[in-house]
Amino acid sequence: MTFALYHLPLSASCRFVRLLLAEKRLPFDLHDEKVWEGREEFLALSPAGEVPVLVEPGGLAVTGAWVISEILEETHPEPTLLGTGRAERVEARRLLAWFEGPFAREVTDLLVGEKVMKRLFGHGQPDSEAIRIGLGCMRDHLAYVDALAERRRWLAGDRLTVADLAAAAHLSAVDYLGNVPWADFEEARLWYARIKSRPGFRPLLTDRVPGLLPAAHYENLDF
Amino acid sequence: MTFALYHLPLSASCRFVRLLLAEKRLPFDLHDEKVWEGREEFLALSPAGEVPVLVEPGGLAVTGAWVISEILEETHPEPTLLGTGRAERVEARRLLAWFEGPFAREVTDLLVGEKVMKRLFGHGQPDSEAIRIGLGCMRDHLAYVDALAERRRWLAGDRLTVADLAAAAHLSAVDYLGNVPWADFEEARLWYARIKSRPGFRPLLTDRVPGLLPAAHYENLDF
Repeated sequence: MTFALYHLPLSASCRFVRLLLAEKRLPFDLHDEKVWEGREEFLALSPAGEVPVLVEPGGLAVTGAWVISEILEETHPEPTLLGTGRAERVEARRLLAWFEGPFAREVTDLLVGEKVMKRLFGHGQPDSEAIRIGLGCMRDHLAYVDALAERRRWLAGDRLTVADLAAAAHLSAVDYLGNVPWADFEEARLWYARIKSRPGFRPLLTDRVPGLLPAAHYENLDF
Repeated sequence: MTFALYHLPLSASCRFVRLLLAEKRLPFDLHDEKVWEGREEFLALSPAGEVPVLVEPGGLAVTGAWVISEILEETHPEPTLLGTGRAERVEARRLLAWFEGPFAREVTDLLVGEKVMKRLFGHGQPDSEAIRIGLGCMRDHLAYVDALAERRRWLAGDRLTVADLAAAAHLSAVDYLGNVPWADFEEARLWYARIKSRPGFRPLLTDRVPGLLPAAHYENLDF
């Protein structure tokens, strides 16, 4: 019983779902979906025309990172990636919303979006002003991750949750470009090294975007 | 045991939470939060500095529309606003993500954002080009609501769900401005009339923004 995931290699939301499936030990096939081609069969699965789309073994299509995360937690509750206590579940979801919301808009969209997605989608040249803003916001957001990692083992508390997977998914996409200033944020770096060494993370590190090599340290567990 | 909701009257995400609480018959107090003032006590509840924030009777603060929706469904499952079947729960969440995502970005932010929020936040004059784009997207999105309402009693299926509440919350904020072309989308209008007549909707219709009267038909159940 295998899931099918329609994705783009450097899409942070897709990477989040790959990590989610791996942590829950659910087997899945990856399908590269060139969403800019607007394939009809794909639009039937995803009216918004966006990845990720996860098709369950029974054929049900689930679209979007957080919907997939809630549905997988309902259908495959063990191991939980939301936690068991009320406050823990609120905090894990708050941080998932943070990385899929403000972090995506202020960092991932401005760096991965401008440098990679714009070219793939045929939307023209990267906007250097957007990239400059993205790099500045990257530092602010990484400082927040650093502060969380300083007082907790995992970002939402004692346990690995969707918060860590979402944060790592977004940071890994930006890290492909070499735009994460790890050297200045030691606690964040130690947390990322821990999550980078998990088995589910390996496949993300071997992804390649045609015509764009990853930063030199991208695959290293010691960076 | 009363909830406290920190909100802004014309914020669609806050309106969604008010409808959610009303449908679940949970009593709540409303607190107008002038988020642009960056009040410290508020930032302690919401690190992102955004509304909605729902404080549970026990004191736990829950931030953001979809996190609040998932947590309320877990703690107060009856009546369910996600449905009981797998496909139903996927569809209700997909549409919630649609209205809180693409609809918000392409319609609500460009109309309510430019005409109302920009002034409140002291961010200058409305951008007429943004408004023009928002009005165009409004028609496309309303056509989609119309198509859903034509084949289903409620947007996600046979039952009222978070999909209806999110759609109605966003549309009601835009409708305050008189920017919803109801006359051209009869099925959408009939669906909206049904949801507008629910008891939980009343308080939304009496909200007023200083210096900006609502469209003439805004409060009418027959519009």
